[in-house]
Formats: sequence, C-alpha cells, structure tokens
Amino acid sequence: MITFRKALASDLPALVAMLADDPLGAAREDASLPLAQGYVDAFNAIDADPNQLLAVAVDGADVVGTLQVSFLAGLSRKGAWRGQIEAVRVAGQRRSEGIGRLMIEWAIDQCRARGCGLVQLTTDRTRADAHRFYESLGFNGTHLGYKKTL
Amino acid sequence: MITFRKALASDLPALVAMLADDPLGAAREDASLPLAQGYVDAFNAIDADPNQLLAVAVDGADVVGTLQVSFLAGLSRKGAWRGQIEAVRVAGQRRSEGIGRLMIEWAIDQCRARGCGLVQLTTDRTRADAHRFYESLGFNGTHLGYKKTL
Repeated sequence: MITFRKALASDLPALVAMLADDPLGAAREDASLPLAQGYVDAFNAIDADPNQLLAVAVDGADVVGTLQVSFLAGLSRKGAWRGQIEAVRVAGQRRSEGIGRLMIEWAIDQCRARGCGLVQLTTDRTRADAHRFYESLGFNGTHLGYKKTL
Repeated sequence: MITFRKALASDLPALVAMLADDPLGAAREDASLPLAQGYVDAFNAIDADPNQLLAVAVDGADVVGTLQVSFLAGLSRKGAWRGQIEAVRVAGQRRSEGIGRLMIEWAIDQCRARGCGLVQLTTDRTRADAHRFYESLGFNGTHLGYKKTL
C-alpha cells in the first residue's frame, strides 16, 4: 500500500540517496553524511514556499519514491497555472513495481486540485524508458528542453 | 537603447498582445480588451511571488519584449537553484534586431545574480529558428519536454 505525503526534514538523507542512485545523478550528487549544507538549504527553501511541493511515496515506514511539483503562474494560455514535475526517483530496490506510475498520477491529481491547466516535465534525451513511460501517461513530447550551467 | 524592468500592471495589455502575436499563441490567447480576468489574476500571482520575475524590455516608452523567469529551489545537483525562462516574446515590428538575444542575456544575468547553478527552458519542437538561437547562446538541447493538458 503506497501512500503520499509532503517530505519532512527527516526524509532528506533518503531523498538525496535516491537522487544519487541513478546513472546521471551519481556524477552530480553527494549522499555522504552529514549532508552537504546545500541540500539542507534547498529543502528549507522548498518547504517554505507554498508553490513548491516536495513529496515522498511511502510504504509503511519506508520512503520508496520522491518527486517535486512546482506550481507556476504564467500569462500564457489565458493565465493558466502550470504544474511542473521534477526530480522523480523510485528507490532502487522498488523499481518496476508500478510505483512511478502511481507517483505521477498522484502528482497530476495535485495539479488538478490546484487548478492547473497543464502539467509539464522534461526528461533527459537518453532516458528512452522514461519517454515511453510518460507517453503512456498521456504526455506529449512536443518540446525540446535546453539547459545551460552557470 | 533597450533597457529591462519588472513588468507593471499597466504593461499587461501589451504583454498579452505579444503572446497572441505568434503562430502558436494566436490559437490559445485572447488579447481583446478588457482582458480576460485570468490574465489579471495570473499577473497578480506572479507579481506577488518573490521567486517569479515577469520582465519587459523597453525602448523609450515602448514595450518591445517580455519574458518570465522562475527561480526554482530543488534538491538535485547538491541543492542548486535553477532559473527557468518561459514566455519569451519580441514585439512583431521589432523582431530580427537582436532584442531577443539581449533579453536572454539579461535573464541569464538575473539567474547568476540569484545564485542559480543552471538556466533551463523549453521550446516547441517546431520552432527551428529558436533552437539555433538558444544553441548560439550556449544552451544544450539535452532534454525532451513533455506536456499534458488537464
């Protein structure tokens, strides 16, 4: 039985471990304890912002997944709010059980409840499995996503 | 001489007109006056949020461009803030003068000033000119962007 809730500060080590346990994340995260202050500061900024929702999927006492939803006001599409999903991860030992699908469906429900007209996300072009996954959930890959590191 | 400032409520009709004056925007915006309440509500939500910056490029008294930057806290990349650029438009009669480039460079500077580690944006896959433009500004098109309307 998978349930969802807002992430707590005490979840932070588990969340960072999930971000690091990933082919792309391994090179850019640091899950060693105590956690780097950047993670703590980011958690506090997200937690204090009513337009940010950092969530965890839990199975009993175990954190088995995480994602972040940003609720973004914008003028486009007659002033539609959009929900943006980022940083989706399922715990390594719990993949391929359908937890990711439950998580995205839950996130979409949160966007609906906030009155969003659109849900958006990007995935790395090398994650072919992710592309099929999001298409099966009704997403259309209509955009190219550009990034520039500073 | 192009300068930049935060958008004011009095700029709103010009901003919506720019969003509508676009092959994709024409089908989904409504620039008729008085503006639909959704635009006014969205402007007020953006204006009240310290992590949102709706900006205009101005030439004397004329609004010649607009874009929105969202400053997003996230755990990924050791808690790096990211700046996200959306809704970039240049006034129809002022295109191909380099105003768009000044706008994006200005937006990147705003992201740097806020300590962002990354700037990101998406563009419709049909906007080939935009792809060349962002690549020339140092962006890498590493991601696919998915959207789902609700």
